[in-house]
Amino acid sequence: MEISKRIQRLKTSPVRKLNPYAEEAERKGIKIHHLNIGQPDIETPKKFIEAIGKYDGKTLKYEHSRGIKPLLKKIQEYYDKLGIHYEEDEIVITNGGSEGLSFSLLAIFDEGDEILVAEPYYANYNSFYDVLGIKRNAVRTYAENGFHLPNRDEIEKHITPKTKAYMFSNPSNPTGVVSTKRELDDIAYLSKKHDMFIISDEVYREFVYSDRKAISFGTYKDLSENVIIIDSISKRFSACGARIGCIISKNKDFMNAVFRECQMRLSAPTLEMIGAAALYDLPANYFEESRKEYDNRRKILFEELTKMEGVIMKEPEGAFYVLVKLPVKNAEDFAIWLLKDFNIDGETVMFAPGEGFYATAGLGVDEVRMSYVLDSKDLKRAMHILKEGLIKYRKEVEK
Amino acid sequence: MEISKRIQRLKTSPVRKLNPYAEEAERKGIKIHHLNIGQPDIETPKKFIEAIGKYDGKTLKYEHSRGIKPLLKKIQEYYDKLGIHYEEDEIVITNGGSEGLSFSLLAIFDEGDEILVAEPYYANYNSFYDVLGIKRNAVRTYAENGFHLPNRDEIEKHITPKTKAYMFSNPSNPTGVVSTKRELDDIAYLSKKHDMFIISDEVYREFVYSDRKAISFGTYKDLSENVIIIDSISKRFSACGARIGCIISKNKDFMNAVFRECQMRLSAPTLEMIGAAALYDLPANYFEESRKEYDNRRKILFEELTKMEGVIMKEPEGAFYVLVKLPVKNAEDFAIWLLKDFNIDGETVMFAPGEGFYATAGLGVDEVRMSYVLDSKDLKRAMHILKEGLIKYRKEVEK
Ligand SMILES: Cc1ncc(COP(=O)(O)O)c(C=O)c1O
Ligand SMILES: Cc1ncc(COP(=O)(O)O)c(C=O)c1O
Repeated sequence: MEISKRIQRLKTSPVRKLNPYAEEAERKGIKIHHLNIGQPDIETPKKFIEAIGKYDGKTLKYEHSRGIKPLLKKIQEYYDKLGIHYEEDEIVITNGGSEGLSFSLLAIFDEGDEILVAEPYYANYNSFYDVLGIKRNAVRTYAENGFHLPNRDEIEKHITPKTKAYMFSNPSNPTGVVSTKRELDDIAYLSKKHDMFIISDEVYREFVYSDRKAISFGTYKDLSENVIIIDSISKRFSACGARIGCIISKNKDFMNAVFRECQMRLSAPTLEMIGAAALYDLPANYFEESRKEYDNRRKILFEELTKMEGVIMKEPEGAFYVLVKLPVKNAEDFAIWLLKDFNIDGETVMFAPGEGFYATAGLGVDEVRMSYVLDSKDLKRAMHILKEGLIKYRKEVEK
Repeated sequence: MEISKRIQRLKTSPVRKLNPYAEEAERKGIKIHHLNIGQPDIETPKKFIEAIGKYDGKTLKYEHSRGIKPLLKKIQEYYDKLGIHYEEDEIVITNGGSEGLSFSLLAIFDEGDEILVAEPYYANYNSFYDVLGIKRNAVRTYAENGFHLPNRDEIEKHITPKTKAYMFSNPSNPTGVVSTKRELDDIAYLSKKHDMFIISDEVYREFVYSDRKAISFGTYKDLSENVIIIDSISKRFSACGARIGCIISKNKDFMNAVFRECQMRLSAPTLEMIGAAALYDLPANYFEESRKEYDNRRKILFEELTKMEGVIMKEPEGAFYVLVKLPVKNAEDFAIWLLKDFNIDGETVMFAPGEGFYATAGLGVDEVRMSYVLDSKDLKRAMHILKEGLIKYRKEVEK
């Protein structure tokens, strides 16, 4: 009895790859500053659990496969405020943005179809692609120019007749890039021209710093047949454990397909949907506060990292990640060394090796992704450890 | 832009196929007795929501992809009481039994692989098979002998070198069959001989009547490499909307594959897992009461149906479904007629046409599945309406 090839193709997530080393370090009593995971530390608003506490139904029934009306309505209102109108049947609730991503891909791709991506990208995308047998048409982007897209002609070179969609996250995990109007226009143009879907993963929409704003692909009115938006309350409201997300699109065939997938798994959890609906009642300044907090961390990270010799990066623009090039031959080896052989007063740092965020083997070998989900004090401490570790590693290990 | 063939293959669920007619009837003010759905009406124990109310975490985090420890432990204890011991890493929590089913299939099957099934079976299995491109090796069973399996040689004829697993629900949705020891022994023998997994969907385990008990495939110790158990709190605790189930197996490669699928979707909802853990603390007599209630309904259904001329069925043994052969040419036409053109004092009945529960086209055309999830009074009323409807339909429509 063998495991399917679909699952044999799956690679271990770069975020979790070093967990065995981390566990070993913890057993030795080392404190690890986790810059490897994308789990916000900000409190989940009390409204969530309060709304659930008020539930007084007798029987927890299967709800409509599309999701409960009150939540659909709240999401509709939220988008109306962004100036984008969706009908209720243009939204379905999913088990996190994760299910939204896999349902969307399943609705579009057959084995051997191709997807246009800009590498590096969210590592879990690789799992979804591998399971479904989707080939990647990868456009390379570089740390040196902050991982922004190359020009339109360069992107177009990667499109083939089998390319069914362009997929990306904006703001981006893992790079922290916020797509410019020019970049989105190019993708819009190419999607029309080559008849491609756009899977726009906008779960980090609120996390944009400086004066910029994330432009939603929902604002491209003439692309309504092409655009699929993936959304989630995980990061927006710091409610990852609720597992509530959604898929939004005006393409009727696509939404019909997605709805049938939803029927297959019957429904999303009732109480979590009730809690999620309540979160959308939070005042607008809720985001201001979490944004301010992350922005502060972002500045610390950027300042400290750019002080280190040989580190290559541009200022991160959004989400709460940054992908940086380190002056080491192999960042994974360095990361393992930090866990196994280094500490300052019993503390060390952990981050995700860059390689797993690329489609092309061999790229990202000297890069790491860090998330700034620690408070400023811990973050400064982590940067200090990294700096000292880097000096020692280059002098004594790589020399 | 086209929808994937995977989704194009999906058929509409027989349980929902007639919904448009039902909605139309309801618009006309007709009251429908729903015998078409498998949604228990019994109250969800208060322990569920109480446990969630006590949650005092600050941030709803992604939990371990395998599920939270307290729930894994409760499930372990529950199985220990059944005399079957599982280690914690032989269990993963899923979003309902539904996710458990699709994860298990995904871990085993590649496009074009085959699965051994006894038709009729739970219609949603077809969706999972279609999406994954799994071919069915269908062994036919008959209303006339209560949908029990034929002898071993007959089953074996349907196995090919591409048959990767046998899959069934026990007790069965839609037939109400509880597998006998002989049937399970035959499947056990064939699985060993032909190197097949057994996907044993035991979500209705508690719902067995008369003196019988459902035998879990977990009790087959020498089959530990082959057996995969799918379980769920949906029916057991009347908590369908919680969406908590699990996959259990002692096969390490399989569990490793399943665990990687779990990582792909990050985690199951935290609060629902907390609620589910509390449900496992209910006293053993909790099941006694719901069983008594269903048993009572089962008797009413059986008594009333066998009084009707031309209805073919055996006494249902478990779950809360029965699949019966009606004395009509086409049960779907009859079901539609009941919704469109018939009522007694503004009331009518609805059930699921049998065809959708078969793999082989053309089978089950004169059959319907009914669930006994209505209280005795409504159930009697529904049976009365069915009886009168059947007489009128045969006299005036089919004549
Ligand atoms: C880019 C991106 N998309 C989607 C998700 C999925 O999140 P969830 O399933 O919690 O909504 C994540 C989580 O880290 C992410 O980083
Ligand atoms: C035989 C069978 N298996 C599995 C399920 C899935 O139930 P859930 O996903 O609610 O656990 C059902 C639901 O009706 C069922 O009838």
